[in-house]
Amino acid sequence: MQDAAATAETYAVSARNRVKRLHGRGHYERAAVHAVLDAGLMCHVAYVIDGQPYCTPTMHWRVGDRLFWHGSSASRMLRHQKAGVPVCLTVSLLDGLVMARSGFNHSLNYRAAMCFGTARLVDDPAAKAEAIRGVVERFYPGRDAHLRPLSAQELKATAVMTMLIDEASAKVRATGVGDDEADYGQPVWAGVVPVHTVVGEPEPCPRVLPGTLPAAGLGPYRPGRPFDEALREAQRLYEGAAD
Amino acid sequence: MQDAAATAETYAVSARNRVKRLHGRGHYERAAVHAVLDAGLMCHVAYVIDGQPYCTPTMHWRVGDRLFWHGSSASRMLRHQKAGVPVCLTVSLLDGLVMARSGFNHSLNYRAAMCFGTARLVDDPAAKAEAIRGVVERFYPGRDAHLRPLSAQELKATAVMTMLIDEASAKVRATGVGDDEADYGQPVWAGVVPVHTVVGEPEPCPRVLPGTLPAAGLGPYRPGRPFDEALREAQRLYEGAAD
Repeated sequence: MQDAAATAETYAVSARNRVKRLHGRGHYERAAVHAVLDAGLMCHVAYVIDGQPYCTPTMHWRVGDRLFWHGSSASRMLRHQKAGVPVCLTVSLLDGLVMARSGFNHSLNYRAAMCFGTARLVDDPAAKAEAIRGVVERFYPGRDAHLRPLSAQELKATAVMTMLIDEASAKVRATGVGDDEADYGQPVWAGVVPVHTVVGEPEPCPRVLPGTLPAAGLGPYRPGRPFDEALREAQRLYEGAAD
Repeated sequence: MQDAAATAETYAVSARNRVKRLHGRGHYERAAVHAVLDAGLMCHVAYVIDGQPYCTPTMHWRVGDRLFWHGSSASRMLRHQKAGVPVCLTVSLLDGLVMARSGFNHSLNYRAAMCFGTARLVDDPAAKAEAIRGVVERFYPGRDAHLRPLSAQELKATAVMTMLIDEASAKVRATGVGDDEADYGQPVWAGVVPVHTVVGEPEPCPRVLPGTLPAAGLGPYRPGRPFDEALREAQRLYEGAAD
């Protein structure tokens, strides 16, 4: 699925994607947005059916400026709206609790990316087969070659959605406590409590055949490693293989 | 803010909150939904402005069947729509990568709760002051007493939203690889890679006054502890203090 090359280094800013609150934390560079998208495995997709908003958690994967995800109820909606539906896809990562000397200055350290576009169902069979490969290869680079192909029935049961990112922003807080100058004299503990998301020790399926080595694709997920680092390495390997 | 007691043990099921895909993973008990809400710090709120969906990450806190969160752009919308706006608030926790013997059976271990209701701005001054206390006390039980009160300006700058949960569902996967029987003979590694989110070592602000002890509220966040356990303990302490 080829798109016109996204040559601009930043996304255009409109009323829709402008960071409104604490706008000093906002970023519009493609690299900043992609860095957040690639560091998270799950996204939340907001869409509307008959005026009712839905917020569906799912896995996303990225090829250039194009995002993909699996469908569930959204897919039913999309099947009836070939022209596409507006969505907002957001990825958020929590990095720490910021405990300040006043209630007002309590905060979080986080990275978030909010992407706007028009979602469409991938229904061309070749495009769909290629897109579906990504859901394994983006997370487990090199693994697809070890797996049997999807059956026709499995392909039919899987709905794949895609959208080109029209507008996006990233919002990041990654610093210490910021108190009002007058509050630093308060005799209250203040600081940051980091939150770490890390890879655990793999738990092999009890029915793995004797002598089977851990497959390609598991490489980035070394136990104890920050999970976002593993995901970003997997994305780099995925992009390298696509070149 | 008192609500009619939610006496039913389960949420009513409608077309809106029915778990449609892999419905065996769906739960409608209040306890199951609350367990997910209380184990996560960040939620994503979906809402609609002029047909455009937005998916905003923020912190949520829960009192019974009522959810609260801070406002950003949503609050601007709400200021003009006192009657309330439909929202969907979702909390998701990633617990592991499930690597199967076929692409189709790859999955995730996760916990998610999706809540539907009508969001309103909390604008009564007393209700707002009480609600805002929750944003510190729910996460850092006992801390509020150590902090100066919010100034009138800070109160004014903070928008608090609330919604009573009308309908909700939880969706959970917490098991090993589930392959098609015919695929267990494939010579490919399969298993679960757990993803752990844990509390880090607190990093005190360099300007903490000498002799200041870590304040009340930090107790649940013992370094190395699973973050969801810490959050659920804080919620129990918060509920206990409210009794």
